[in-house]
Amino acid sequence: MLKDWVKAKRPSDEEITMRLQQSRAQLVNMQMAIKEKKLPVLVIFDGWGAAGKGGVLGKVIKNLDPRFYKTETLSKPSEDEERRPFLYRYFIRIPEAGKFSFFDDSWMKEVTSNRLLGQTKAEEYHRQLTSIKRFERQLTDNGYLVVKFFFHISKAEQKERLKQLEEQKSTAWRVGKWDKWQNEHYDKCLDVYDDYLEATNQFVAPWYFIDAKNRKWAELQVTEQLVKSIEIALQNTGRAAAILQNTFPLKRMPKLSEINLNKKVSDAEYEKELERLQARLADLHNRIYQKKIPVIITYEGWDAAGKGGNIKRLTAALDPRGFEVHPIASPEPREKNRHYLWRFWNRLPKDGHIAIFDRTWYGRVMVERLEGFCSENDWQRAYNEINEFEKELTDWGAVLVKFWVHIDKDTQLARFTDRQNTPEKQWKITDEDWRNREKWDAYEVAVDEMIQKTSTEFAPWHILESNDKHYARLKALKTVIEEIEKKL
Amino acid sequence: MLKDWVKAKRPSDEEITMRLQQSRAQLVNMQMAIKEKKLPVLVIFDGWGAAGKGGVLGKVIKNLDPRFYKTETLSKPSEDEERRPFLYRYFIRIPEAGKFSFFDDSWMKEVTSNRLLGQTKAEEYHRQLTSIKRFERQLTDNGYLVVKFFFHISKAEQKERLKQLEEQKSTAWRVGKWDKWQNEHYDKCLDVYDDYLEATNQFVAPWYFIDAKNRKWAELQVTEQLVKSIEIALQNTGRAAAILQNTFPLKRMPKLSEINLNKKVSDAEYEKELERLQARLADLHNRIYQKKIPVIITYEGWDAAGKGGNIKRLTAALDPRGFEVHPIASPEPREKNRHYLWRFWNRLPKDGHIAIFDRTWYGRVMVERLEGFCSENDWQRAYNEINEFEKELTDWGAVLVKFWVHIDKDTQLARFTDRQNTPEKQWKITDEDWRNREKWDAYEVAVDEMIQKTSTEFAPWHILESNDKHYARLKALKTVIEEIEKKL
Repeated sequence: MLKDWVKAKRPSDEEITMRLQQSRAQLVNMQMAIKEKKLPVLVIFDGWGAAGKGGVLGKVIKNLDPRFYKTETLSKPSEDEERRPFLYRYFIRIPEAGKFSFFDDSWMKEVTSNRLLGQTKAEEYHRQLTSIKRFERQLTDNGYLVVKFFFHISKAEQKERLKQLEEQKSTAWRVGKWDKWQNEHYDKCLDVYDDYLEATNQFVAPWYFIDAKNRKWAELQVTEQLVKSIEIALQNTGRAAAILQNTFPLKRMPKLSEINLNKKVSDAEYEKELERLQARLADLHNRIYQKKIPVIITYEGWDAAGKGGNIKRLTAALDPRGFEVHPIASPEPREKNRHYLWRFWNRLPKDGHIAIFDRTWYGRVMVERLEGFCSENDWQRAYNEINEFEKELTDWGAVLVKFWVHIDKDTQLARFTDRQNTPEKQWKITDEDWRNREKWDAYEVAVDEMIQKTSTEFAPWHILESNDKHYARLKALKTVIEEIEKKL
Repeated sequence: MLKDWVKAKRPSDEEITMRLQQSRAQLVNMQMAIKEKKLPVLVIFDGWGAAGKGGVLGKVIKNLDPRFYKTETLSKPSEDEERRPFLYRYFIRIPEAGKFSFFDDSWMKEVTSNRLLGQTKAEEYHRQLTSIKRFERQLTDNGYLVVKFFFHISKAEQKERLKQLEEQKSTAWRVGKWDKWQNEHYDKCLDVYDDYLEATNQFVAPWYFIDAKNRKWAELQVTEQLVKSIEIALQNTGRAAAILQNTFPLKRMPKLSEINLNKKVSDAEYEKELERLQARLADLHNRIYQKKIPVIITYEGWDAAGKGGNIKRLTAALDPRGFEVHPIASPEPREKNRHYLWRFWNRLPKDGHIAIFDRTWYGRVMVERLEGFCSENDWQRAYNEINEFEKELTDWGAVLVKFWVHIDKDTQLARFTDRQNTPEKQWKITDEDWRNREKWDAYEVAVDEMIQKTSTEFAPWHILESNDKHYARLKALKTVIEEIEKKL
């Protein structure tokens, strides 16, 4: 793709100057529209070393209001970042609605460099390409504008530039080992880049090649393309995106109404089993820590189904230094202003650690769907987006266990009433709980659909029958133990 | 202090069991009060290696609701953390109101280990002790409960425990090099610990020594002390803290009314100087990057004083990869639920980078004071707290430049009217701006007091006379350049 690319003819210097003046002014004027329409704009600058990405980026932002953009220059992943999925450090840096993020080198650099240096095998590399395509598509589907530039120069041009940089004392430090390696292996790099660019050139987030031989001309290409892309995106804000068919194999799951809630356990049995299972889990916690396996356990369920008590029986078995519980409430402004999975990416555990989510990303297809906090198109798309997210987690090597804590309507009423009548429990019951109860039927429809559509083979739902809380607690422990053992 | 400590007599096993049952139940019952009264509780577990801190911590949290606490186990600072002030990684992990944070090893370990290994000189070590005392006092003054435990065992006991751990395959990995070093240099460690404990044993955050020879007895001591400390803190929520006298040398500053706002610059002079100063700043940016000097530039000023345009003239000179602008709006919930400086600690630049704050921590003594968002005691205390914070920054090696962008009331009116009447500028003017304008006189009193009380010698205010915006921009550039040059 890059190899066959035919450059446009460079305009005259006068024309470049004139058009640059015009497009710069256009870009400046667009800032307010971007803010008003709450458009998040992610711009990536990839390309050859010494192609002048940084210089052009500097020019582009010079006229922007510095309160409305961030620039991100990522070098090698830190130790902490290496203990998360490879997209983690990029996902947590996506822009807020109404703002720009400029990436000086993107995930392309990390992925292609590792491939070139032989650190990534073919299979993993292709999985990464798939992940990247999903990542970029998920952003644009959720209202992001993603503009991708690749700065192109020839081998000879690069060589010349590196030489010049090195000769001057003030710029010599800017020439890195990588740049030199790249120039020495230019053709090999070209092959890999061409392949990468082709693979990730999607309709929703296409590549724009920048002829970077002349700096002013490069700036003009970038600025004009940015203006064009933003214009289109502004016209399209709020536009519904295509709903992709799920392509992951699904497990057959029962409907909620088919679940037998009479499962029970005796007190004696409970005490005995609880102790045994907690000891087993404590042991496994040690092992996943040593083997650096991340574990993610998620809880959804009816109000008063017993999530809190269930979680406590898990954590009681765990080494406090190796887990974290994330209670998920309604999103804060900075969270609301980003992709709905952003706050969960931010809370992913390090490998070897356990993260427990008390409510999860499934809010998208439950409360957000039912309360109209997102559009129908949004939640319809979310099933596939969530499956993709969970695929990312399991591909990374995580054990992912998803619980639906289930009770029937009568049990909920009994527990609500009990909470209302017991002073120490009153904090647990709010008016909202009663309002949600009135929507039981609508929720049941949503939950049934959710469980059907997101029980993938790699991350199926587990139902915890919780009319008898003791039964549900033992089952949760057993399930977590089983899933960790499978992994080990 | 530790050396002279006389242990309490250990109760009988039966008594321990009985009292443990009681105090565990008390702790569990306190959780709701902590939540309701929005008390943040920070508990630190320090002590000798193999003293059983982790085990007791595990017991203590076993009965707590995992949604209401976090445990923090910090090992060596990461590369990223090493590029911030040493307290950074602790400050960003303080608990939210209504929740616990348990630190398994605190800042004590980092600071004393570095001292023991000869990595910190005496002078720096004493500065660190001062910083720690301020840190802990600032927390408690701002409504935090800070409970500090030191787990004590004898040299012989430690030796025996390390031996036992090493002999068992399943626990051998838990014995680190540091633990062994500690045992070999027990007496030397004891000296340093004793000194540290003495120095940081403040009335507001005292140390509690735990006789850790017997695990159950250790748990009882911890639990009972926690219960006692929380009881007292709950009684005291909302209590006003002492207002410490400022002890930093202050610069004499003019009152706002004494400032000559007629300073002007011609257009020709402006263009010429702007270019010259920006080139100079660009050059300095390179040098601070290479020398790893952090730079923090803060802006406060009247609405419509020209902060935005002023900031833009600075950033236009900077390499986009080396700075970040932080517009500060009203705090989000997670920010409101923590010490008011927390969100600024979170935004400190890495060394070699520049952070520009568009509005700052001075909100505490301006908008929060005038709108009653904090108590009088809170903002009265804040002058000294802020001076201490800025001392921390400059001690770390930061260049800190604080601007007050100043105009008179007539100029503000003219600019407001202009904004109102110019369609592209209307987004810049809100009803709130007009409301704030009505409070001009009250703000002037607050600003005068702020400038008098926080113009320390290490971080004085700089007034930017901005009736003529061009003049103010050049002065900002000159001031930043001067301050960086001083440092270099």
